[in-house]
Amino acid sequence: MFRLDELVERLGGELLGDPATAVRRVATLEQAGEGDLAFLANPKYQSRLAACGASAVILAPAARDLTVLPRIVTADPYIYFARVAQLFNPPEAFVPGVHPAASVASPIPASVTVAAGASIDVDVELGERVVIGPGCRIGRGARIGAGSRLNANVTIYHDCVVGRDCIVHAGAVIGADGFGFARERDGSWVKIPQVGRVVIGDDVEIGANTTIDRGALDDTVIGDGVKLDNQIQIGHNVKIGERTAIAGCVGIAGSTTIGARCMIGGQAGIIGHLEIVDDVVVSAGTLVTKSIRRRGVYTANLPVQGHAEWVKNFAHLRHLDALVDRIRALEERKERKAR
Amino acid sequence: MFRLDELVERLGGELLGDPATAVRRVATLEQAGEGDLAFLANPKYQSRLAACGASAVILAPAARDLTVLPRIVTADPYIYFARVAQLFNPPEAFVPGVHPAASVASPIPASVTVAAGASIDVDVELGERVVIGPGCRIGRGARIGAGSRLNANVTIYHDCVVGRDCIVHAGAVIGADGFGFARERDGSWVKIPQVGRVVIGDDVEIGANTTIDRGALDDTVIGDGVKLDNQIQIGHNVKIGERTAIAGCVGIAGSTTIGARCMIGGQAGIIGHLEIVDDVVVSAGTLVTKSIRRRGVYTANLPVQGHAEWVKNFAHLRHLDALVDRIRALEERKERKAR
Amino acid sequence: MFRLDELVERLGGELLGDPATAVRRVATLEQAGEGDLAFLANPKYQSRLAACGASAVILAPAARDLTVLPRIVTADPYIYFARVAQLFNPPEAFVPGVHPAASVASPIPASVTVAAGASIDVDVELGERVVIGPGCRIGRGARIGAGSRLNANVTIYHDCVVGRDCIVHAGAVIGADGFGFARERDGSWVKIPQVGRVVIGDDVEIGANTTIDRGALDDTVIGDGVKLDNQIQIGHNVKIGERTAIAGCVGIAGSTTIGARCMIGGQAGIIGHLEIVDDVVVSAGTLVTKSIRRRGVYTANLPVQGHAEWVKNFAHLRHLDALVDRIRALEERKERKAR
Repeated sequence: MFRLDELVERLGGELLGDPATAVRRVATLEQAGEGDLAFLANPKYQSRLAACGASAVILAPAARDLTVLPRIVTADPYIYFARVAQLFNPPEAFVPGVHPAASVASPIPASVTVAAGASIDVDVELGERVVIGPGCRIGRGARIGAGSRLNANVTIYHDCVVGRDCIVHAGAVIGADGFGFARERDGSWVKIPQVGRVVIGDDVEIGANTTIDRGALDDTVIGDGVKLDNQIQIGHNVKIGERTAIAGCVGIAGSTTIGARCMIGGQAGIIGHLEIVDDVVVSAGTLVTKSIRRRGVYTANLPVQGHAEWVKNFAHLRHLDALVDRIRALEERKERKAR
Repeated sequence: MFRLDELVERLGGELLGDPATAVRRVATLEQAGEGDLAFLANPKYQSRLAACGASAVILAPAARDLTVLPRIVTADPYIYFARVAQLFNPPEAFVPGVHPAASVASPIPASVTVAAGASIDVDVELGERVVIGPGCRIGRGARIGAGSRLNANVTIYHDCVVGRDCIVHAGAVIGADGFGFARERDGSWVKIPQVGRVVIGDDVEIGANTTIDRGALDDTVIGDGVKLDNQIQIGHNVKIGERTAIAGCVGIAGSTTIGARCMIGGQAGIIGHLEIVDDVVVSAGTLVTKSIRRRGVYTANLPVQGHAEWVKNFAHLRHLDALVDRIRALEERKERKAR
Repeated sequence: MFRLDELVERLGGELLGDPATAVRRVATLEQAGEGDLAFLANPKYQSRLAACGASAVILAPAARDLTVLPRIVTADPYIYFARVAQLFNPPEAFVPGVHPAASVASPIPASVTVAAGASIDVDVELGERVVIGPGCRIGRGARIGAGSRLNANVTIYHDCVVGRDCIVHAGAVIGADGFGFARERDGSWVKIPQVGRVVIGDDVEIGANTTIDRGALDDTVIGDGVKLDNQIQIGHNVKIGERTAIAGCVGIAGSTTIGARCMIGGQAGIIGHLEIVDDVVVSAGTLVTKSIRRRGVYTANLPVQGHAEWVKNFAHLRHLDALVDRIRALEERKERKAR
């Protein structure tokens, strides 16, 4: 429970209305009730302010007079909401110590928590206050920075590095072998040992069941502040720049480099050995098959249609080249006539 | 081993031929032999009846006279087959009790099975006959309804709810944080605490390595009778209506609502904040980028071509707008001439 | 550390330059330094030879005189590189034995390694030198051939078979139920028991978090020498021929058969009940919706564009059929005039 004046003291913003108004959680404009602090981040929802039952509201300067509720005015209400939500919902406090059903083969700081069923191999270095969830496996020689938290059943392969204050969700696999094989003439495959590591920066979040492969010769590198959603696959020797965010189910093939502050939409794919510069946005479902040299938004996906319409329209895609020939033929006749 | 008259007594249907015919498993028309009960569900396979070596056959009224084999006539042979297969293959019977290598921090019913390496946190409620597979992690305050079975290495995060008679396959992760961040001007991300839950109804099946994120403020909700295949990603605050079935590798982004009895094909994607009504079918590989307001089948995927043809045809997609301009120009000249 | 003459003695090839040259690891042309053995596999990189700091180089006969460095000349430098890399980086040597925090309910050979937190059910058969990583779950009646290695948190369901010398990466799930349900008139689903197995050949590699479902009635079969990357989903009753390689995030729906020596690009999808012959290459991101009867390369994906261009061009896809009608109308007028 915070009073509005306490919030403004900690997080800034201009306070209008009763400073003693108490709020105990954040909520959407629609669902907020007594004791809730709502927020208006997107002007298109401002009509919802009228009926809002919140005790107070966070809003932008342009919206300051749209309600008589106690309110906090701030340049970016969504960021403010995020910070208030963090105040109301601090990260879980873990009791330090090693669960008796964990297996730990390296010396670790007393501030570390290791849950039931976790196993930590030899030569592992864990920073202060690291949390290793139940069933996690930390391979030989791996390093995890202070304050990082691994949820359940996370696997960190040998020698991989995770920075400080990272969050890794359940089932993620960091450092499995990259998909590297040389092909014999008869089609059989000779495995290329994958001797690079995965090196992950600070303040990175990695979603559930996401996989990041170790490098073949050099390392796979994930920059500081990168946010990865669930079920992402990152191939060997990929490099991802700082603060890039990648939505669920994206696949990035080997040796591709992605710049800083990119945003990659869900189910997008990026083939191998490409370069994508900083500040690129790739739309959901888009397969990137060429390097992207200029910042901007890039898209390649199809409009959904009713199935019958789709059958009619898309049959022509097989014959687009012939269609263009027919147009050219029509144009040429015109040309001849014009002459 | 069942006699045909025993099957008909339990499951209904009309019996033709020797009621004492004994069958001990179900099989396809092609592979069935002595002691097998085959089924003809799809009329296009009826030519296979002639050579079928089964001891008996399940078929529809229209096909009743297509064989002289002992047979069960029923309106829906595929449903009948499913029910016979369930009789022949009852779910594994687990011995109740907690394995000595499990860690259980909540009181649980005596009828529950907890396998080796599983860990159950405090304040967890498990219904009667729940089975917790090896290596599963049940977070603080989670609830799992009677008769539900979790296979190996499943993670249920804190406070999530799984209904009765659910099946969750290995590696599934229920309740990891949704992908919610507010973006600062400098491109850095402020985490929005994900304080909602995942609430899963009764009779739901969840495939291997599927992930369902907890809600940001409200809950993510999966309705009764929903069937989810493997490697599906469901974002925060998604709602899925009763009996909807979703095939493998589908991604559904945050805050999207899907109606009841929908069928979503493999690798389809649905972007966030959409509404899809009841009884919608989405074809495999289709990315849905707009709400769907009417029941029906919706599709957006490409015809596969030999690579050389594809190169020829698809190059034109970049210039479709110019192509349309050329057609328009041709039409306008015609217009002018006609005048 | 190997001398070049030792390498040539073991692996063949023609040695030019000082046979006593010692190398201790492999590296790319760009990054190689003192003590490194670099390789030139792709002629387009041959300009990098000049500045290469390696102690020696592997190259093809055509490139034999492009450097004065000590070198090994061989028909396929990439295969040679792979084999040298294997010499320099032999697989980890595991100490045989069962970790005290593992649960083993079957008799196993003394040469087997079972790590912490692993659990092995009854009636399991493990070959010599099998390695079961931490947190793996081997179901009742499963069999794993000699020399196969499972990384952490792998789940093998009951009765499944893994061949010899396989590598299975963390989080893979072998043998979960296929997605098999019969649909009642009211839209509810009746589960069809999945009683087939997964049968995996020898020398197969399976990537992290990849899932392979057990067969419904018959088995799902993965041939010898198949290589599967991460996050692949393989449905029930799929058959994959020998030495086929499949990149990350591919989904293959039930009952599809894929030939030998195929290569399937990342994020490709193949719908169910298809047949794909030997030696087929499917490009990344391609959804295969028909059987492929002839070897060759097959593609269906879209060119990426800047978002504004894409909006302009792709709007027309909804109207392609009408566009073709307009072209036809133009052609018909021409025809009439010509007559």
